[in-house]
Amino acid sequence: MLGKREPKLYGKQTLADIEKSCAVHGKKLGLKLVFFQSNSEGELIDRLHAAVKDAAGVIINAGALTHTSVALLDALSILKCPVIEVHLSNIYRREKFRQHSYVSGAATGVICGLGAEGYLLALTAMKTLLKN
Amino acid sequence: MLGKREPKLYGKQTLADIEKSCAVHGKKLGLKLVFFQSNSEGELIDRLHAAVKDAAGVIINAGALTHTSVALLDALSILKCPVIEVHLSNIYRREKFRQHSYVSGAATGVICGLGAEGYLLALTAMKTLLKN
Amino acid sequence: MLGKREPKLYGKQTLADIEKSCAVHGKKLGLKLVFFQSNSEGELIDRLHAAVKDAAGVIINAGALTHTSVALLDALSILKCPVIEVHLSNIYRREKFRQHSYVSGAATGVICGLGAEGYLLALTAMKTLLKN
Amino acid sequence: MLGKREPKLYGKQTLADIEKSCAVHGKKLGLKLVFFQSNSEGELIDRLHAAVKDAAGVIINAGALTHTSVALLDALSILKCPVIEVHLSNIYRREKFRQHSYVSGAATGVICGLGAEGYLLALTAMKTLLKN
Amino acid sequence: MLGKREPKLYGKQTLADIEKSCAVHGKKLGLKLVFFQSNSEGELIDRLHAAVKDAAGVIINAGALTHTSVALLDALSILKCPVIEVHLSNIYRREKFRQHSYVSGAATGVICGLGAEGYLLALTAMKTLLKN
Amino acid sequence: MLGKREPKLYGKQTLADIEKSCAVHGKKLGLKLVFFQSNSEGELIDRLHAAVKDAAGVIINAGALTHTSVALLDALSILKCPVIEVHLSNIYRREKFRQHSYVSGAATGVICGLGAEGYLLALTAMKTLLKN
Amino acid sequence: MLGKREPKLYGKQTLADIEKSCAVHGKKLGLKLVFFQSNSEGELIDRLHAAVKDAAGVIINAGALTHTSVALLDALSILKCPVIEVHLSNIYRREKFRQHSYVSGAATGVICGLGAEGYLLALTAMKTLLKN
Amino acid sequence: MLGKREPKLYGKQTLADIEKSCAVHGKKLGLKLVFFQSNSEGELIDRLHAAVKDAAGVIINAGALTHTSVALLDALSILKCPVIEVHLSNIYRREKFRQHSYVSGAATGVICGLGAEGYLLALTAMKTLLKN
Amino acid sequence: MLGKREPKLYGKQTLADIEKSCAVHGKKLGLKLVFFQSNSEGELIDRLHAAVKDAAGVIINAGALTHTSVALLDALSILKCPVIEVHLSNIYRREKFRQHSYVSGAATGVICGLGAEGYLLALTAMKTLLKN
Amino acid sequence: MLGKREPKLYGKQTLADIEKSCAVHGKKLGLKLVFFQSNSEGELIDRLHAAVKDAAGVIINAGALTHTSVALLDALSILKCPVIEVHLSNIYRREKFRQHSYVSGAATGVICGLGAEGYLLALTAMKTLLKN
Amino acid sequence: MLGKREPKLYGKQTLADIEKSCAVHGKKLGLKLVFFQSNSEGELIDRLHAAVKDAAGVIINAGALTHTSVALLDALSILKCPVIEVHLSNIYRREKFRQHSYVSGAATGVICGLGAEGYLLALTAMKTLLKN
Amino acid sequence: MLGKREPKLYGKQTLADIEKSCAVHGKKLGLKLVFFQSNSEGELIDRLHAAVKDAAGVIINAGALTHTSVALLDALSILKCPVIEVHLSNIYRREKFRQHSYVSGAATGVICGLGAEGYLLALTAMKTLLKN
Repeated sequence: MLGKREPKLYGKQTLADIEKSCAVHGKKLGLKLVFFQSNSEGELIDRLHAAVKDAAGVIINAGALTHTSVALLDALSILKCPVIEVHLSNIYRREKFRQHSYVSGAATGVICGLGAEGYLLALTAMKTLLKN
Repeated sequence: MLGKREPKLYGKQTLADIEKSCAVHGKKLGLKLVFFQSNSEGELIDRLHAAVKDAAGVIINAGALTHTSVALLDALSILKCPVIEVHLSNIYRREKFRQHSYVSGAATGVICGLGAEGYLLALTAMKTLLKN
Repeated sequence: MLGKREPKLYGKQTLADIEKSCAVHGKKLGLKLVFFQSNSEGELIDRLHAAVKDAAGVIINAGALTHTSVALLDALSILKCPVIEVHLSNIYRREKFRQHSYVSGAATGVICGLGAEGYLLALTAMKTLLKN
Repeated sequence: MLGKREPKLYGKQTLADIEKSCAVHGKKLGLKLVFFQSNSEGELIDRLHAAVKDAAGVIINAGALTHTSVALLDALSILKCPVIEVHLSNIYRREKFRQHSYVSGAATGVICGLGAEGYLLALTAMKTLLKN
Repeated sequence: MLGKREPKLYGKQTLADIEKSCAVHGKKLGLKLVFFQSNSEGELIDRLHAAVKDAAGVIINAGALTHTSVALLDALSILKCPVIEVHLSNIYRREKFRQHSYVSGAATGVICGLGAEGYLLALTAMKTLLKN
Repeated sequence: MLGKREPKLYGKQTLADIEKSCAVHGKKLGLKLVFFQSNSEGELIDRLHAAVKDAAGVIINAGALTHTSVALLDALSILKCPVIEVHLSNIYRREKFRQHSYVSGAATGVICGLGAEGYLLALTAMKTLLKN
Repeated sequence: MLGKREPKLYGKQTLADIEKSCAVHGKKLGLKLVFFQSNSEGELIDRLHAAVKDAAGVIINAGALTHTSVALLDALSILKCPVIEVHLSNIYRREKFRQHSYVSGAATGVICGLGAEGYLLALTAMKTLLKN
Repeated sequence: MLGKREPKLYGKQTLADIEKSCAVHGKKLGLKLVFFQSNSEGELIDRLHAAVKDAAGVIINAGALTHTSVALLDALSILKCPVIEVHLSNIYRREKFRQHSYVSGAATGVICGLGAEGYLLALTAMKTLLKN
Repeated sequence: MLGKREPKLYGKQTLADIEKSCAVHGKKLGLKLVFFQSNSEGELIDRLHAAVKDAAGVIINAGALTHTSVALLDALSILKCPVIEVHLSNIYRREKFRQHSYVSGAATGVICGLGAEGYLLALTAMKTLLKN
Repeated sequence: MLGKREPKLYGKQTLADIEKSCAVHGKKLGLKLVFFQSNSEGELIDRLHAAVKDAAGVIINAGALTHTSVALLDALSILKCPVIEVHLSNIYRREKFRQHSYVSGAATGVICGLGAEGYLLALTAMKTLLKN
Repeated sequence: MLGKREPKLYGKQTLADIEKSCAVHGKKLGLKLVFFQSNSEGELIDRLHAAVKDAAGVIINAGALTHTSVALLDALSILKCPVIEVHLSNIYRREKFRQHSYVSGAATGVICGLGAEGYLLALTAMKTLLKN
Repeated sequence: MLGKREPKLYGKQTLADIEKSCAVHGKKLGLKLVFFQSNSEGELIDRLHAAVKDAAGVIINAGALTHTSVALLDALSILKCPVIEVHLSNIYRREKFRQHSYVSGAATGVICGLGAEGYLLALTAMKTLLKN
């Protein structure tokens, strides 16, 4: 799971809090989670390239890169597994330039505006997608 | 819950199936659900106006009206309760005119592309929103 | 007179209050008023089609349909009588999509941003238009 | 056949006249016609949904909704039978906003600008399409 | 009150006629009117700057400057009193470049398309605004 | 009749087949047909200029020039006789740049998406237009 | 004749030189010329308003106001006499914002890019226009 | 001189009339004229390529190709002699697509809206340009 | 130095205060300052034309004209001395129409958002530019 | 091979020089070349239609028609053989209207900005494409 | 202070020269400076995140990232201290894509076009901002 | 040579295969090659900065950064040596956002759509460019 924006700005929980609830929820669902966070587009892409081999599903919050990175879209497009895009805030109520997501072009589904719980919902949805 | 598009096109479940799983899931969460479906913008708006008094939260899939109805945006804006927008398909991978949602302008959060399960996730999220 | 948006949002008076002051003001001007309110575009159009025969003038607040309904423009264009468009708020200071009115394309004049009094001013103007 | 705009504006024949000539022409072609007219988008959609079961072909003049209704596009897209779009006037010589048709996105063919005869031509074309 | 366009073009009354009916109507309403007319944007702005001190309300018809003058918008924005924008013709039925008004960005309300009577309606509305 | 695009791409019939069915249908309608085909805009224009004198009506399929040739629009605008625009495919479901037709700006009517039969329908319509 | 831009920038002749050659050429043509130059939009408009009474034709180089002044367009539109727009440089080869002229919307003809001689050509053309 | 549009539409004179007055005026100016008219872009380009060698100046009315032909722009750009663009009508008061000229991108000057006299003015201007 | 907008809106200092601090700072730098303020575009242009002769550098805050005046751009383009554009507020965080400056097209540099101190910084920068 | 623009403008070699080096290089590669050059869109299309039968591959430099000709795109789209688009200059560093190529929509590959050598590279690439 | 573009291109001083003058000027102002330079968006963001704790003010020249990086905007938006954006060249006179700055959306002020001195001016302005 | 996208997606050869054929072809041409691959924009820019000193020519495939990175454009613009842009696929037949390349703004030439052979062609072209 890739998380890039500061949760302080977007809810009361810290990134550590979110990772912890995800870990707990993932365990309940029988999913093994690996967390990854970086401010570097290159590192995110390297991580996604690695995911081709080591991931059954990807949950991604690409932060501001969501709106500008064609390279992320390309890295996600190589993946054959399900991809769920998460945003803490509802990007479709924000500035115009935040209302377009390159990530969506390669995502199975999108969950946004539901805060930290968005990650838990994504895990639940991923579980279902992996069952089908 | 307002649902307007044919689930046959967007997944294997019928609207009745979705309503049933929602009812089951809602019961588990302790939420009392009321379903509403109409092809008429006017009826949807009338229902939303009624929701000002009789609803603690609204989960809405406005189908094609999502992209064209300022009137729905206005009806949703009057509501003070949480609103979750659901789409069976990922509208952000579809035609350009489907990538803008007037509903989002009044929604707390958006869940799309995750099929019928999107409604169940929305119920879970609503439960959390109502607790806070 | 067609009114579609909630006056609670746009001023202190209820729709009933506005209808009452209109009735009083209309009486003073010697105008016979018929009120019509609906959230359905189809019903508004049916009403306007009827107006071809039963109305000497139309004062219309088409609410959110103002910005999206070519069908309303067509229904108004059939009328040969004066048409005055009223909005409680100044739509030209609001979101970009509220700054275009299809109704204006068929209206003699527009009054907006002057709250409930806008209807009274419209009645006064209508009186003058009918005299000429 | 769905017809929504006033033929008075767009030719000398009334809607009844057009229905009559269509009936005569349809009979000659061995086609059984059902007419439907409404100013309500919802009712048109309900009728098109019913057409999935009861129609071998659809000839539609969606009037002003042509230019604004994604919901009509979606309702037509569900149909597997041929769809012919008819307009009395040549919409491609009119205002810019009338030069885009959502209906065309789901139509086999388009006939416009040929007045009431457009319906008869559509019937002839439908006959051919049903033969192939 | 600032008036800038030729009424000859936009109705039968001369500017003098309009001023006279305004004076009569203003007297009836108990309002003291000061007229100002200029073809110079700079003079209009100087007058509006003076209005900060000497006016309880402003009724403005900025003519063609309506569509081009950010400076007028800024001068009006400084005012704390009500501002009513008047146009003799319905600018929203005219050329595209006349359908945007910088003046509206600072106006309480807009009255257009009702000819010289628009000024009288504006005076009536101003009276009400000043009472509240 | 001007035809420019390859029917192989747009239906099973060759241009010769189409010309033959047109000839048969034209004979039945009592219309005398002259066929003209060219890949040169200049030759098409020369032919249309000649049509001012020798044609009672024009049925034109301008192929790709439909979308780019202001010169064709001008040549058609000189004609006082009816003009019917035909396209084998439904150009309004194709690439964006094919959804604008300069030819439509001078056409009485448009028939598209109905394959080779479109020409026959155009002949029928032309017969009616010439009778009126 | 209204001239507003510096000829030094746009050719070797000074404004005085141009006025002189215009006077000479006007005399030859039997035209009586009145020159007017101002950097103020308001003064130009006042002058054009006066022209309604005192001019048989107007030759105008509105300089940079060409591209921004709707007020000039309106002032020119009141005139019933011929109006010829002159520019020293070819504005259609310059920056995009110089390629739109509000003045053209009210001009009989345009002459640009031919330097100071443009004024003489305009005088010749005006002579012809006044003869017809 | 290349002329492509029908003068009948744009003035009382025929192309022959214009050629005749041009010949007379050219003789007076001491200019030797060669006329060329074609509806084919390719022929116009071939003629312009020849002009590299045989012309001291070019006066061109490219008709509708003005607005669409980059190839004409390129052919004119090769020329080192003066180029004057002429239009019988004022293209800047017509449809939007007629307000852009590729020809202008390679023209010394533009004369439009002054009818057949535009050609004579162009000859006069050309004489001056060739003297400098 | 040209200053046009009200400093009251954009900082605590009055225009007089700013002029005073500029005078003090200019003296320290050994620069002789001349202040000019006007709400008239024409007067500003006249002043800039005079600056061709009497100024070694220009510091300009063109207020709202910044965004609309091509004439100011032209007047500034004639100057050969350095030009520094100052804005009290950061115009690039404001409404879209304030984010384009015609003045910038002729300015050496821009300082904005730093309040009244922007003028002092501009004086310092001007001193350096004049030294080089 | 179709070549339409003047090589003099775009490199030191003449069209003849290019044809000669192409012939030499083609011989080395074992390719049989046929050259074709025309300024007429119609002739180019006729040639491309013939290529359906007589060509194993097409190398095309459509000059200015690249940017405007949908008809060329259609003619190229019929071809099943490889198509390589060549431009002497780098069109993507030139005017905006030269940065869109209709030809690219039907081309296997594009080579531009490498001068006359671009044709040789295209021949080499064609050889490889024909081998696969 | 973040500096990313090559000063060689934008003035005679090297980055080292600029750092040195900044150090000298900062010392004079009593400001303690920390320099940071990187070509990696991720590193710049990491540095800005650190600035939340260790900086009283930020002076940033984001080079080309200015125009593309929403992530930088977000990183700057977290800061509560003053932010001054500096560019060596006047970006508002350059290509269109350089005329939009995401950095400005979070900057207190902007200084551009004044070369290396821009940094010194920024330091002076920062000193003042920190005093208030 | 900078290569950033996965060759698996864009042809049968791996990046290693391409490097090997490039090495072989480069050797034949007498060129010494240095390969560089990174998913980080910053590292690519650092490498290009180094190329100012250590490269006689640059062949670059910037992958998805092609479409978004002004920083790459700037880094390439500093280079005085030839730059050839290569893409495995024909980017001009893909999504709209892939049809603009910032890299092209600084490239001598572009080769795209010719798969891995594009690199070999680029080497051949580079050899020629270095000879001139």
